[in-house]
Amino acid sequence: MSTCEESDARAALKRSVMTRVPPLLNDLYQFSMAYAYWRADRHREPAVFELFFRDNPFGGGFSLFAGLNDCLVFLKNFAFSDQDVEYLRSVLPANTDPDFFSYLKELDCSSVSVSAVPEGSVVFARVPLLEVSGPLAVVQLLETSLLCLVNYASLVCSNAARFRLAAGPRCRLIEMGLRRAQGPDGGLTASRYTFVGGFDLTSNALAGRLYGIPVAGTMAHSYVTSFSSLAEVWPKTLTPSGGGSGIDFISLVKGRLSAVCQLLGSKAELIREGELAAFMSFAIAYPHNFLPVIDSYSVSCSGLVCFCAVALALCDLKYQPLGVRLDSGDLCRQSLEVRRVFKECSKQFSVPQFESLIIVGTNSISEQSLAELNKKDNEIDVIGVGTHLVTCTRQPSLGCVYKLIEVRGRPRMKFSEDPEKSTLPGRKSVYRLLDTDGHPQMDLICLSEEPVPTAGVSLNCYPLVTETSLQSITPAQVTSLRLDVFTCGQIMYPISSASESREQAQNSLQMLLPRHKKLQEPHNYTVAVSERLNSLVSDIRRGNSKDNNFLLLN
Amino acid sequence: MSTCEESDARAALKRSVMTRVPPLLNDLYQFSMAYAYWRADRHREPAVFELFFRDNPFGGGFSLFAGLNDCLVFLKNFAFSDQDVEYLRSVLPANTDPDFFSYLKELDCSSVSVSAVPEGSVVFARVPLLEVSGPLAVVQLLETSLLCLVNYASLVCSNAARFRLAAGPRCRLIEMGLRRAQGPDGGLTASRYTFVGGFDLTSNALAGRLYGIPVAGTMAHSYVTSFSSLAEVWPKTLTPSGGGSGIDFISLVKGRLSAVCQLLGSKAELIREGELAAFMSFAIAYPHNFLPVIDSYSVSCSGLVCFCAVALALCDLKYQPLGVRLDSGDLCRQSLEVRRVFKECSKQFSVPQFESLIIVGTNSISEQSLAELNKKDNEIDVIGVGTHLVTCTRQPSLGCVYKLIEVRGRPRMKFSEDPEKSTLPGRKSVYRLLDTDGHPQMDLICLSEEPVPTAGVSLNCYPLVTETSLQSITPAQVTSLRLDVFTCGQIMYPISSASESREQAQNSLQMLLPRHKKLQEPHNYTVAVSERLNSLVSDIRRGNSKDNNFLLLN
Repeated sequence: MSTCEESDARAALKRSVMTRVPPLLNDLYQFSMAYAYWRADRHREPAVFELFFRDNPFGGGFSLFAGLNDCLVFLKNFAFSDQDVEYLRSVLPANTDPDFFSYLKELDCSSVSVSAVPEGSVVFARVPLLEVSGPLAVVQLLETSLLCLVNYASLVCSNAARFRLAAGPRCRLIEMGLRRAQGPDGGLTASRYTFVGGFDLTSNALAGRLYGIPVAGTMAHSYVTSFSSLAEVWPKTLTPSGGGSGIDFISLVKGRLSAVCQLLGSKAELIREGELAAFMSFAIAYPHNFLPVIDSYSVSCSGLVCFCAVALALCDLKYQPLGVRLDSGDLCRQSLEVRRVFKECSKQFSVPQFESLIIVGTNSISEQSLAELNKKDNEIDVIGVGTHLVTCTRQPSLGCVYKLIEVRGRPRMKFSEDPEKSTLPGRKSVYRLLDTDGHPQMDLICLSEEPVPTAGVSLNCYPLVTETSLQSITPAQVTSLRLDVFTCGQIMYPISSASESREQAQNSLQMLLPRHKKLQEPHNYTVAVSERLNSLVSDIRRGNSKDNNFLLLN
Repeated sequence: MSTCEESDARAALKRSVMTRVPPLLNDLYQFSMAYAYWRADRHREPAVFELFFRDNPFGGGFSLFAGLNDCLVFLKNFAFSDQDVEYLRSVLPANTDPDFFSYLKELDCSSVSVSAVPEGSVVFARVPLLEVSGPLAVVQLLETSLLCLVNYASLVCSNAARFRLAAGPRCRLIEMGLRRAQGPDGGLTASRYTFVGGFDLTSNALAGRLYGIPVAGTMAHSYVTSFSSLAEVWPKTLTPSGGGSGIDFISLVKGRLSAVCQLLGSKAELIREGELAAFMSFAIAYPHNFLPVIDSYSVSCSGLVCFCAVALALCDLKYQPLGVRLDSGDLCRQSLEVRRVFKECSKQFSVPQFESLIIVGTNSISEQSLAELNKKDNEIDVIGVGTHLVTCTRQPSLGCVYKLIEVRGRPRMKFSEDPEKSTLPGRKSVYRLLDTDGHPQMDLICLSEEPVPTAGVSLNCYPLVTETSLQSITPAQVTSLRLDVFTCGQIMYPISSASESREQAQNSLQMLLPRHKKLQEPHNYTVAVSERLNSLVSDIRRGNSKDNNFLLLN
C-alpha cells in the first residue's frame, strides 16, 4: 500500500485501539502477582510466555490467527495513567509498599519482545502463536489484554472463513452483525475480522471508514412500512438517465404494474399501496441503486410485483435496477421463483438486464443453513449474515491461554489436575513443514536451541493430541512460522490494513489441503514436538529436571 | 447516592460511552433510508419505533432489561463529525443531493423522546421496552446503536441472573471473563452488566474503576510455576502482625510442613519446591490476603500441603490466611477433601480460623455445571465464572429488534413471510398487572389512547404467543411499565450507578414469582394485548385499515 494509505491505516488503528485498551482493562490478579514479584525483587527477571489455544474452533481442522495489529499497538502504547495507579492503590492491600506504585507509573514495554505468527495465517491448536519475552512482572501484566485482543479476533475471523467455505466461492457475503455483537466495539471488531476471514462487504459504516472495508446496505422493512399511500411519493417525477425533462414516474410505474400483473396473473387488489409507494420513492432517490427488500408483506402477491413494475419503469428511463432482498421465509424456494419472474419479465418486456438482477438473501443465516442452502438449487447472489457470524453461536469462545514457559533461562511447566491443561515448557521455535507443492504438512515445535530442520532430511517427532508414538517425516520445505514482530518496545512488523490481512488469510487458506478445510470431520493436521522437547516434558513430569524439582526437606 | 458520586458515575459513563458509540457505528442502510426520506421531504414526519425481543433468552421465563444508561448518553451526544459526513459522501451514490450532507452535519436528538422500562427491570418477550419518537429520518438512524447497546447488556445481565439463581444465594460469584469477551469493550460491558445481574465481584480492574464494582483476584498458575526453588523466596523474613522483629519465615514454614506431612500422611518427596516457594513469597507480600491457587501440580500431593504449612506459619505470626483456589478437576470432590484437611488442621494445630477458610472454585463453570454443583455436597464458598458467562454460550444473542409502529399518527405494521416476525402496530402503553402481594401477574399492551386499566376491575385481553383466545383478568394493582426517560433531547431519568442498577434488578427479580424464575421449564408469564390493539392488528391484516391498505389501481 502507499505510504499515505499506510499512515491512514496506522492512524485509524491507533485511534481505535488506544481508546479501547487501557492497560487497566486487566484482571486484578495480574497486579497482585506483579506486586508479589516486585516485593521479592523478581520483577526484572527475564521471563517468557506463550499464547495458544487448545482446540480448533467449531469442530474444524484449522483456525485463522488475527488480532496481532491490535496487540502491537497496545504494546507500543502500554502505560498507566496516574488515575489508574491511584485506583490500584485503593484496591490493593493497605500495606502494599508505596514504591510499587511509583514503579507502575514508569512501566512500559521497552524491554518486551514478541515473536508471532503473521496476521491472517492459518494456524492450529496447541501451536504457540505469540511468544512474549521481557521482565517477569511486565509480561505477566500483558496476559489479559493480549488474550482479549487475540481471542475474539481469531475466533470470528475463523468463523468467517468457515462461512466463506460453506457459501462456495461464487456467492458474495455481507457481514451485518453490528446490532447483535457484544456492544459497539464487539461489532467493530467483528466487521474488521470477518472481512479478513473472507467476507466481501460490511453493513457497518464506521468499519468502512476506519478499515476501508467496502460497505453495503439499502433499506429495512421500516422504510417500506413507513409508506401507506402513493400520495407520499415525492418528487413525483424522475429525469431519464440520459437527461431531459422529468417524467411522471407514478404514471409510468402504474402502466408497468398493469402489464406485470397481467403477465404474472397477480391480483392488483393484493398489492400493498404503501409498498409500491416506498419502492417508487426509493427508486426516485436512488435510480442507479434500486435494491428494495420485498418481503414486508408478501413476496409473491405484492413485493415482487411492485419491484418489477418500478424496475421496468427505471429501465424505461435507461436506469439499471440492481435487484431485490429477501429477509424471511424459504430463501432458496423464493429465489428460484424470483429468478423465474425476472426471466419472464426479461423476455416479455425485452429487458435482458432483468436476467442478471441480484438476489440478496438475509434471514438468520448460520454456517449450517448456508451449507444446506448451497447444496440446494437457488438463485441467491449475495448472502447477508449477522447474529450467527458475529456471536459465533456454535462456539462463542476460542479459549486462548497465555502460559509461562521460561524464567531466567529455565523452562517452566504447569501440570494441573486436568492433563490437557498441561503446558509445553521452554522457549521454542515453530516450523511449518511443507510438501513439494508448498502445502502445509505438519507444524513442528522444537526447543529454540535445536538446529533448524533441513529440507529433504528425515526427522523424528511426537505428534500431539492424536498419538504419542514416535513418527518420522521428511519435509520437502521448511518455513519458520513466527517472525520477530516487536523488539524492545519497537514494532518491527508492518501494521497491515484489513485488505492486506484478508489477502494473507485467503492465500494461507488457499495453500491448506482441502481435507483439513472440510467443515465436518476434517482430517487432522499434525502438530508435533521434537524428540528433545518431548524428553524435556518427560523429565519435568518425572521431577528429573532441576527446574521443576520436588522438595528435599532438610 | 451523593451528588459527588453521581457526577463521578456520570462522568465515567460519558467517558466510556462517548468514545464507544460514534453515530457512524451504524448500518449503512440507515443512511440510505435517511437520504430517501430526506429526498422525499418525509424526514421530519413524526415517527415512532419500538424496541423489543421475541423470546426470553436461554429457554427461560424472564429477562433483565439493561443498557438504558448507555442509550441515554448516546442520544444526548448524538452528532456526526465532519469526517463522518465526508466518509458518507464517499460511499453514498455520486448523485446524492449535497444538501443532504449539510442536513446530516446539523442532526442531533433534540426532537427525539424516549419512554423506557427502567434499567434493571424484569421484562418479558414481545413487550416494547423502548419507544422512540421523533423525526422519521433521525429515529431511523438510531436503530442500530440502540439495538447494539441494549442487546448484549440485557443478554449478559439476564445470563448473570440465571447463574445467580443456579448458584443459590449463599455462594459469592466473581465474573472473570475479560479475556474471553468480544474484545476490550465486550469485556467491560460484561463486567458491568453481570454485576447488575447478580454477580458480587469482577476480576476486571477497569470495571472496578469506572463503575465502582468490587474487584477480586490473587494469583495465576504462572506465578506458581515461575518459582523453582526456596532460594527465590525474598525477603526471607516476615514481621508478625502485631509488630516486632522479622521472623525467619522459611524455617517457620518448613517446621509447619513437617507437622502437616505427618498429620496428613503426605510424602515430602512429592511436594514441589517451586510451589512451596511461590506460596511463601506470596504470603510474605500479602500476609493479610493469602489465597493461592493450589492445583498447579497436584492438589493433594503438593498444593494443599504447601498451603497448610504456609497458612499455619502465617497464623503463628497472628495473620489470618484467606483460603485457596481450585482451578481444575472435580471441584466438589476436591472442595470436600480440602475442607476435611482444613478441619483436621484446625483441630490438630488449634487454629479455629482454619475451619472458615474460603474455597474458591474456577473451572469452565457453566449455568448447568453450576446448578449440578449446587445440588451436590460441596464446600465451595466463591465461584469464578468466565467464558460461559460473558459469551452467553447457550444463546449468544438476545435478538432485540426495532420496529416502526407509527408515522404521522398512523399505525404501521410489518407482516413478512414468517408470521412470528410480524409487529404490533400503533403507539402503546404497557401496564404490569400485579396480584395482591405485588407479584407481577401479566404485562398488558394497550393502545396509548386507551384508558388506564383500573385495579379491581375485570378486563378482557388476548395473550400473545401461548393462546389467542380472549382472556379475562382482574388486576389487584396496575403499574405503568415505562417511564419518560428522554424528552426532546434531555435526559429525564437519573443515570444509575452499577450498584443502583443491581439493586433495582435484584428487587425486580425478588418480586417475580418462583415459577417464572425456574431455570428449566419455567411457567410462562402472560403478555397480552388489549381488545382494541387486537382489533387493530386484525383490521390491518385484512387490509381494512386505511393505514395499510391495498392498492386500488385506477
